[in-house]
Formats: sequence, structure tokens, C-alpha cells
Amino acid sequence: MALIEDLKWRYATKKMNGQKIPKEKLDYILEAARLAPSSSGLQQYKIIVISDRALLEKIKGFSYHQSQITDCSHLLIWIAWDGYSDDRIEGVFNDMMDERNLPHNTMDSYRKTILNLYEEAGQEWQAHHAAKQSYISFAMAIAAAAEQKVDATPMEGFIAEKLDELLNLKGSGYKSTVILPLGYRQTENDWLVNMKKFRIPKDKFIVEMTIDDASDIAEPPMEQTLDDFTQK
Amino acid sequence: MALIEDLKWRYATKKMNGQKIPKEKLDYILEAARLAPSSSGLQQYKIIVISDRALLEKIKGFSYHQSQITDCSHLLIWIAWDGYSDDRIEGVFNDMMDERNLPHNTMDSYRKTILNLYEEAGQEWQAHHAAKQSYISFAMAIAAAAEQKVDATPMEGFIAEKLDELLNLKGSGYKSTVILPLGYRQTENDWLVNMKKFRIPKDKFIVEMTIDDASDIAEPPMEQTLDDFTQK
Repeated sequence: MALIEDLKWRYATKKMNGQKIPKEKLDYILEAARLAPSSSGLQQYKIIVISDRALLEKIKGFSYHQSQITDCSHLLIWIAWDGYSDDRIEGVFNDMMDERNLPHNTMDSYRKTILNLYEEAGQEWQAHHAAKQSYISFAMAIAAAAEQKVDATPMEGFIAEKLDELLNLKGSGYKSTVILPLGYRQTENDWLVNMKKFRIPKDKFIVEMTIDDASDIAEPPMEQTLDDFTQK
Repeated sequence: MALIEDLKWRYATKKMNGQKIPKEKLDYILEAARLAPSSSGLQQYKIIVISDRALLEKIKGFSYHQSQITDCSHLLIWIAWDGYSDDRIEGVFNDMMDERNLPHNTMDSYRKTILNLYEEAGQEWQAHHAAKQSYISFAMAIAAAAEQKVDATPMEGFIAEKLDELLNLKGSGYKSTVILPLGYRQTENDWLVNMKKFRIPKDKFIVEMTIDDASDIAEPPMEQTLDDFTQK
């Protein structure tokens, strides 16, 4: 089915029925999440997958007791880098160069350029930046779940710092960013399922601009060479 | 075509050929972006669409002179709220309640709860949080473009503050977060097109956890009532 139809079909499921999703559907959703682009291709995140009931019960207590945490089939937790370092970036780029049969030093100058930009922005910005990349992957999982007719609830309602402690992430260099229970809706007990989907109307959401809308400021000097500051 | 196949097909196009994309494909991509879920359904972002050559030339000067800015058919720019306020949230919720034929006060208690959480986190966090939601929409546009066999280059390589000034966003309550040129690849001049796609292998990207991996900490007190802190 086309993506737009899938996006119309999906909604943030409020009540799940505990039914398991088939392994091939779970694998499909995770593969879509893995194939998502990320800034400089760094994939600054991973996904924790949990189906263990005892752990889900625990996590529910860290997530405002939302029922989907324990009524889902699997809970996906995105965890992202808590900051950038030369070692971390080099590690990924070396693997990338190996995969592409290129020498390790191919990206040296680019690596230094982005590291400088990141260091200037500070560690808090870096964690947010890495987290933003995980949202792209998160979105691909949401789209993939809808395509597979698997229900999902995009969730930020959890105490990230406590969840990280529960999952022993302290010291791992990763922090939890966003979570996604996967499962099946329990239609008769879900208050949202029959509500009309609300989105900002097109004419307010999309703004076309031309040169007449722009100010007349001079372009900034671009000292950094950055032929490649894009997601892969 | 299935999402996973689309994600394998796409790549961050480095050289575009200037060819225009049909209006129906542009509309399709924008509609997927509009249908994306967002935290509390707030849609804390909009999309600016630019095809005016003179403005694209200007923007290129604010974007490290990347060629896709002027060789694309259309440039999409996501702009997100620079912070949360009761008025902003209430405005969206009122429209949502109107659409659902519910009284405006339906979400009052929930609105106060999230506003408190946002205020505690501070304005910088708020801007990052709104920007993160825009990345979900951004990802849906990337997936939709791939489905439509339209090339796209996810980009963060621009001076956001200067771009905001150029586009007269100062004082609008919005800040640019991420941009996406849409168009068609110029295969013979694109260094990335034939490179092997690199992604972290599944066994490193996916981490399964059970209760045995968890620490034995007590669950935090959940004073806030938050039956609904989820994306719609």
C-alpha cells in the first residue's frame, strides 16, 4: 500500500491487546529503521528490543504507567550517542571505508571539519543532534509498522534518565531518546481509534516563498570546506 | 514498492540534473510530511517550499555552496517552533477539538501537564524538542520521495541562524531545522551514486534485553497524570 495510505491508517494506539507480531514483521520494521539516513551517515543510535514481560512491567513504572508498554508485543527503545568524539566518528567512518574498499584516511579532512563544528556547539547540542538522527529512524519504523498493518504508539512519555539507569546505559555513551511499542489495537477500549485524525490544513502547513519574501542580507563567509555535510 | 526497497533505492544525492518533478509528486511528498505524527499531535513545524531560482541561488550561499540547492527542482525547509507557550499549544488543541467536535476545554488538564514539563526543561530544550518532531516529518518526506522515485538530499549543512534571517523568520516564532532538495540525480557526476550503502550491521544495531540486563532500581514516583503523552 502507498505510504500516504499507510499514514492515514496509522494512529497512536492507546490500547493494545497483547497479541504478538510475527517475527518477519518485527524484522521488517527493524530493517527499515536500520536503513534510515543519518547525519554524515554516522548512525549515532541503536535500538533496544524488549519483549520480556518482567522487564516491560518494570519499564511501565518509568513511563507514566501507560498500558501499551505491557500490552504491546515488542517495545523498541532508540538510544543515541550522548556526544561526539573523534574516536566515535572515526570508528564509524573506518567501517564505512572498509565496506567501500577505500583507505581509512579518505574522510580525514571531512571528519575534522564536522568535529570542529560539533565541538563549537557543545555537548548538550551534540546529544540533541544525535537524538534528532534517531527520530528519522524512529519515523521509518513507524512507516514500516503501518505498512505491515502493525499498530504502534510513538512515545516520549518516559523518564529518560531513570530508564537509562534501569537499562544500565550509564557509562555506555548512549541515552534513550524515544520509544515505540508495537502490537495490535484493542479497538473496543481505545478512545482514539475512532477519533478523526487532526492535521494542520495544507494551506497553513505549506508556505511557498520567492525572492520577494527574502531579506537583502549578505551571504556569510563559508570558510569551512564542506562538500559533504549531508545525511547518507 | 515496499518501504524497505525504497530505502535501499534512495541515497543522499550529491549531484542533481535540474529536471523538474511533477506537481503531483511534490504534493504527494508534502502530504506524507503533513501526515507525520508529532508529540501530543502539536505539529510544531511547517514546511517552506522554494523553487524560485533567484532565492535558491541566495540560499546556496548560506549552505556551503552545495550544488543540490540550485540543481534541485524544489527545496523543502522545515521550520519548527522556537519554544512552547500556553497560547501556542492551546491554539493547536482548539483546532483539534473543533475538528473532533469536542469542547475546547477537553485537553485543559493535559495541556497544563505538558506545559509544566516543557517549562521545567527550558527554552533551549523546547526548541530542540520541537525540532525533533520536524525530523519525523522530514523522514516521511524522504520515504515518500523514494517511493515516488524522486531523488532527495537530506541536509543539515546550512547556517540556520543566517538562513532564518534571509527568510525573515526572526520574530515569527519558527526556526529552520533541516532542509531537503528534491530532484533527479545526475548519475555521471555523482560520486556517491555507485558507492555501496553502509549501515551498521544488524547484530550491532539491534540489542535485545531482558530483565537480567536491568538494574534493580526503584521506579520513580509518577505524580503527574499523563495518560496521553504520546504522538498522534
